[in-house]
Amino acid sequence: MSTIWNNLSKIRNEAPLIHNITNYVVMNTTANALLAAGASPVMAHALEEVEVMVGYARALVLNIGTLSPAWIEAMLRAGKAAKARSVPIVLDPVGAGATPLRTETAQKLIDEVAPTVIRGNASEIRALGGALAATKGVDSTDSVESAIEAAKALAERYSLVVSISGKTDVIVGKGQLARVHNGHPIMTRVTGMGCTASALTGAFLGVEASPLEAATQAMVVTGVAGELAASRSAGTGSFQVQFLDALYNLSEADIETRSRREND
Amino acid sequence: MSTIWNNLSKIRNEAPLIHNITNYVVMNTTANALLAAGASPVMAHALEEVEVMVGYARALVLNIGTLSPAWIEAMLRAGKAAKARSVPIVLDPVGAGATPLRTETAQKLIDEVAPTVIRGNASEIRALGGALAATKGVDSTDSVESAIEAAKALAERYSLVVSISGKTDVIVGKGQLARVHNGHPIMTRVTGMGCTASALTGAFLGVEASPLEAATQAMVVTGVAGELAASRSAGTGSFQVQFLDALYNLSEADIETRSRREND
Amino acid sequence: MSTIWNNLSKIRNEAPLIHNITNYVVMNTTANALLAAGASPVMAHALEEVEVMVGYARALVLNIGTLSPAWIEAMLRAGKAAKARSVPIVLDPVGAGATPLRTETAQKLIDEVAPTVIRGNASEIRALGGALAATKGVDSTDSVESAIEAAKALAERYSLVVSISGKTDVIVGKGQLARVHNGHPIMTRVTGMGCTASALTGAFLGVEASPLEAATQAMVVTGVAGELAASRSAGTGSFQVQFLDALYNLSEADIETRSRREND
Repeated sequence: MSTIWNNLSKIRNEAPLIHNITNYVVMNTTANALLAAGASPVMAHALEEVEVMVGYARALVLNIGTLSPAWIEAMLRAGKAAKARSVPIVLDPVGAGATPLRTETAQKLIDEVAPTVIRGNASEIRALGGALAATKGVDSTDSVESAIEAAKALAERYSLVVSISGKTDVIVGKGQLARVHNGHPIMTRVTGMGCTASALTGAFLGVEASPLEAATQAMVVTGVAGELAASRSAGTGSFQVQFLDALYNLSEADIETRSRREND
Repeated sequence: MSTIWNNLSKIRNEAPLIHNITNYVVMNTTANALLAAGASPVMAHALEEVEVMVGYARALVLNIGTLSPAWIEAMLRAGKAAKARSVPIVLDPVGAGATPLRTETAQKLIDEVAPTVIRGNASEIRALGGALAATKGVDSTDSVESAIEAAKALAERYSLVVSISGKTDVIVGKGQLARVHNGHPIMTRVTGMGCTASALTGAFLGVEASPLEAATQAMVVTGVAGELAASRSAGTGSFQVQFLDALYNLSEADIETRSRREND
Repeated sequence: MSTIWNNLSKIRNEAPLIHNITNYVVMNTTANALLAAGASPVMAHALEEVEVMVGYARALVLNIGTLSPAWIEAMLRAGKAAKARSVPIVLDPVGAGATPLRTETAQKLIDEVAPTVIRGNASEIRALGGALAATKGVDSTDSVESAIEAAKALAERYSLVVSISGKTDVIVGKGQLARVHNGHPIMTRVTGMGCTASALTGAFLGVEASPLEAATQAMVVTGVAGELAASRSAGTGSFQVQFLDALYNLSEADIETRSRREND
């Protein structure tokens, strides 16, 4: 287990290839975030090549934001190949709970490809883990706290890590829990910030053996870059520009002075 | 019927969900524009989920910029579901007139889903309404004036509103016509500004009952944000950044001092 | 054969339509780069319309960055229509050599549509031309020099121009070779800069009869805009903004003072 700074330095030095099968809206955004962090993104979704491509990758990121049947098949195929080669997998279950297609696809991916980390917001995590949780009460709020029981149930049942993003991010593993208090409210007004956190989780999984640590460090880095960007921008347009610049320039001092993480 | 400022405030307070089935080029751009304005965008095109998704939406935006058969089917299915639930629909007939596929798809959507507003440029509107218009003379210019007769014919025949964007935007309903003199020429040098106007038309339809009013207000807001951005930028890169910032920060004073709209 | 400045002025005055069948990641980026340079981009990939659309175009750009079978078919169909009408074609063989699907698709496009220019990086060009080259030794570096023999073999065999991008760009035709020393290392940390160079190669082919000249001029313009942008930016976010602004504002003096091109 390395520090955030050591892992970020590794990403910058080793440029791990991160294979993304993601949604149309954020492809450019997450490719640029991975590049700004120092990783090497590749986007490839053809059934004919996903298995070959994942063979080069240090992590696979599956994001169901703009699904269609052919893409689901590609995700399953790539995921199984990744699993067979022990390539870590991040699942971003965008919109799980909103439509049966999304909930069922996320569930199928959990069952069949055994993701290393699920990174979603509170309502997505509740949609996936709620039925497993001891307390099934549906919380009408979107608070991260409302999803912790569901996350714990998922982590326990599938031996994976769940990273719930929100005002405070909560990262849950079997018997482990970390909280990250970084970030800024303007991040909810830019499309793809959650998807970016998922992509960066992939980059950290590419260099860090502990999934809980990788997921937590990715949330700190996303949050710190977001804070720096928010302090330098006047709206959601300049925020996006500043976010990439902050990620590209992130220093050890930025992380040390701003990281607000706690382990339970 | 509310003022622009009241409707923009409603969008910011209520964050209406706008379901977009749009083209690959602008998905990120229009999602961010909707977020900057205060709305909640969702992009979903799978046949398996469009009907469910549109059930949550306050408006549906159909944009034919990068068509293929499966997407046409999704637009028809989503459009029919929206129509059945009285969810207002915006159609952006990108490239109608350029290829039979686009002209025919736009016509089919008009016939089968009965859009609330068609938002296009002059040549697109002429391509769709020209044959219906009393004066069929093809104007070789791209001037908005050349498309007004076609717009009136479409509005009359299908009981919808046509919003023609150009140097002056002209918004036409049955027996109604408004003009908007806002905007800046640099907007034609950035991809997706028309698509952004269509998406924002969806956001205004989500909070305003009068389609003519919603379409007109969206053109004012797009144009005013464009003027502010142009005055603060040095090219098409900085323009895009400033456009989102301007939309995010748009004030009542910005609208009152800059809105240049007239009703016939 | 015109100067860079004369051709850029032609692009700005004539706004040649450039038809792109390209990857999802860069569609917005390359559309905006073409617009900033003064050209008119259109993205269209439906089998039902690519042949019609290419009939309006002054160049066709085929980019295999996010392939799937339907898109390959569209590229073949559009390419054949372009060839039949003598519309120049740029092929960007993104990832050739990485997966059989990409290598075979690029080869098939070379065989069946006879591109005017292939624009790729060193490893892509080696993957396509290596087997034809006198010296087949695989260079483990990514240096452009390592791909020149492969480029010469491709140029000779297929009577086309190969534009290899890297620290120094090398553009190879039958018995011709030019080098361009423009550009900046930060360009490798932004997604789609190579694809942008390919798109701009299409724009120059739209106004310049010599393919070697068009390909070389496009690399100079991309590189000079990149240098100007790098000098005005603080990271990869601001770089992208400044790149479009630089391209939009590029002056004759910028080109004259910065162009570093040599012909062998």
